[in-house]
Amino acid sequence: MAEQNSFHPSGERFTVVYRLSGNEAEARAKAEHICIEQTVEFPAELIHDEMIRQHVFGQIESFQPVESGHYEASISFAIETTGFELTQLVNVIFGNISLKPGIRVEQVFLPDSLLQTFRGPRFGRDGWRVRLNIPDRPLLSTALKPMGLSAEALAEQAYQIALGGIDLIKDDHGLANQPFAPYRERVERCVAAIERANRETGYRCVYVPNISAAPPDLFERAFFARQAGAGAVMVAPGLVGLGAMRQLADDDDLALPILSHPTVQGSFVTSPDQGITHGVLFGLLVRLAGGDGTIFPNYGGRFAFSRAECAEIAQATAAPLAHLQPIFPAPGGGMTLARVPDILDLYGREVIFLIGGGLHQRGPNLVENCRYFRGLVEAM
Amino acid sequence: MAEQNSFHPSGERFTVVYRLSGNEAEARAKAEHICIEQTVEFPAELIHDEMIRQHVFGQIESFQPVESGHYEASISFAIETTGFELTQLVNVIFGNISLKPGIRVEQVFLPDSLLQTFRGPRFGRDGWRVRLNIPDRPLLSTALKPMGLSAEALAEQAYQIALGGIDLIKDDHGLANQPFAPYRERVERCVAAIERANRETGYRCVYVPNISAAPPDLFERAFFARQAGAGAVMVAPGLVGLGAMRQLADDDDLALPILSHPTVQGSFVTSPDQGITHGVLFGLLVRLAGGDGTIFPNYGGRFAFSRAECAEIAQATAAPLAHLQPIFPAPGGGMTLARVPDILDLYGREVIFLIGGGLHQRGPNLVENCRYFRGLVEAM
Repeated sequence: MAEQNSFHPSGERFTVVYRLSGNEAEARAKAEHICIEQTVEFPAELIHDEMIRQHVFGQIESFQPVESGHYEASISFAIETTGFELTQLVNVIFGNISLKPGIRVEQVFLPDSLLQTFRGPRFGRDGWRVRLNIPDRPLLSTALKPMGLSAEALAEQAYQIALGGIDLIKDDHGLANQPFAPYRERVERCVAAIERANRETGYRCVYVPNISAAPPDLFERAFFARQAGAGAVMVAPGLVGLGAMRQLADDDDLALPILSHPTVQGSFVTSPDQGITHGVLFGLLVRLAGGDGTIFPNYGGRFAFSRAECAEIAQATAAPLAHLQPIFPAPGGGMTLARVPDILDLYGREVIFLIGGGLHQRGPNLVENCRYFRGLVEAM
Repeated sequence: MAEQNSFHPSGERFTVVYRLSGNEAEARAKAEHICIEQTVEFPAELIHDEMIRQHVFGQIESFQPVESGHYEASISFAIETTGFELTQLVNVIFGNISLKPGIRVEQVFLPDSLLQTFRGPRFGRDGWRVRLNIPDRPLLSTALKPMGLSAEALAEQAYQIALGGIDLIKDDHGLANQPFAPYRERVERCVAAIERANRETGYRCVYVPNISAAPPDLFERAFFARQAGAGAVMVAPGLVGLGAMRQLADDDDLALPILSHPTVQGSFVTSPDQGITHGVLFGLLVRLAGGDGTIFPNYGGRFAFSRAECAEIAQATAAPLAHLQPIFPAPGGGMTLARVPDILDLYGREVIFLIGGGLHQRGPNLVENCRYFRGLVEAM
């Protein structure tokens, strides 16, 4: 371990702010553990290589109490520890220490030298607006459901929704390639149904199939969607990994907007003392992975996110991040038409309104319900 | 929504046992929510299709109190909801409801009709023992570290460890493709160093590089490892997804044992009231994804798993699971040589002993430390 290393680090570092539970001694021990565990994972006293000690070790940049029984530590890491890969960046931010209770990732600050590695969202808010020809109002979205309907029935539903003037018709995230509505048949039928409606309305409604599956299916479904005429794809990084999502976003031959879905990721955000904050998980990391929109459960719906947590996500979708474009927050999860004004109040016009079952609850005429939804938003 | 569906379900169902927090009314509401949220995600009262109501809805099979303020519900789902894909199976088990506090996946029971979809571990315990020519003693493993060493220095470390008689020399999980020790150079040098040692010892020590990266790098690194002569690969499903790991395991051209690493997955297990139990996450799901061994932090090390939680993982690595083979538990995370007897007591001989930094702490002679470790285990 005594040999000197010929590698010359850039000296550039990124910083993670961790919230640590415990008394001061416990919290400080956690901060010191993070510096070692997330990098060398080796008894520090046995490492004599000066490059490693000075550059590879995490470094505590600040440490302070934030509230009773909680401390906040800013810890910096050499950008080279990430290997300039998203997977390994996540691994340094919250890898093995995810296995230790009482540690939460609060904020992540990445220097331009590291951000230049990431292309980020291909379309972002502006690019997606151009594609949809919607200069400034909120985007309207709903999901095809329930699971169990045939592809034909889902396509008929898509036709009615498109007639009603919704912009983005996505698959429910539980629609994969089940025998009731196989993927390829569903995509072909839904695209055709929406195109038929668009010819009648003059709108540019698009279909957003769920392609969340293991590779190579993930990539095959993405390209099938493109070829069939889908207008975007939906991907759940909790199922396929942020890195695979980034790979889709960076593919010049695919070049479709990506809508990120939060399924399976809940355990990272359900405890105030452990995990990753909403803004980092559903904002920053989705942007790094090239998502153009990020779905999350809105406050006051079927889930438990607070208004402040949702505001944090919205803020993170547009926070300055070198050349990486702002993306759309897409609050959903039990929204109803009655809540449209409140949602507009929090998110403003830069939002994808995602209303699922609530769109069916207003009455039996789905076309009329969609028109009412669109009218509500246009009137604001 | 009134049209009848032409799809005919098999009637086969799988069952998930959820632990629910709250009083009886709250827990029952959670159980009912799971039945809907994990399947149709639609207001139940608006669904009139009998096939969907009878087959696609989740069904509460049992509901009972388990301890103060906690209930357990067994909920069954049609096997067709999974689309016979691992990603979608996980999505049904713990997708959107991961976003709701107070729900933990305790157990998962899969019928043979669903298990036949999964090939499972290609080698399992027996196949891996044959490859390594170790009929019955525990397997010995350690990790190359610290991050920051050059590929040359890591290879020299691998040489000493192999001389000392360790069976599996894996990368530390933080070694990716960083500039200090680029992946391909590291693999080539480490394989060569270990082969040199094997010629001296007559052992069959193998190198296990970490290939956790986004596709296509994941697959390129796997095949490079195989071509270069590595004896297994290490994959972190928390970074690349369980589905991608399964894809590697199912690839007949790769055909290397897979060691699963738990990094980033901690948030699923750090709360007793939320997430997924240790046995399901690190046992069952790893086996479904084709891992041949599963690394997890042993009790009493740097992390917080209890002895009971570790025993649960060990049990899940060998529980009956149709044709899917038992795999090795690989407890690590701050193990020391002094704890070898205790580890043997819990896991028996069907275990991969994973000792990292502790192997270096005994003294400066790494070869001797490894020989001592091997001697300890062989003497038991």
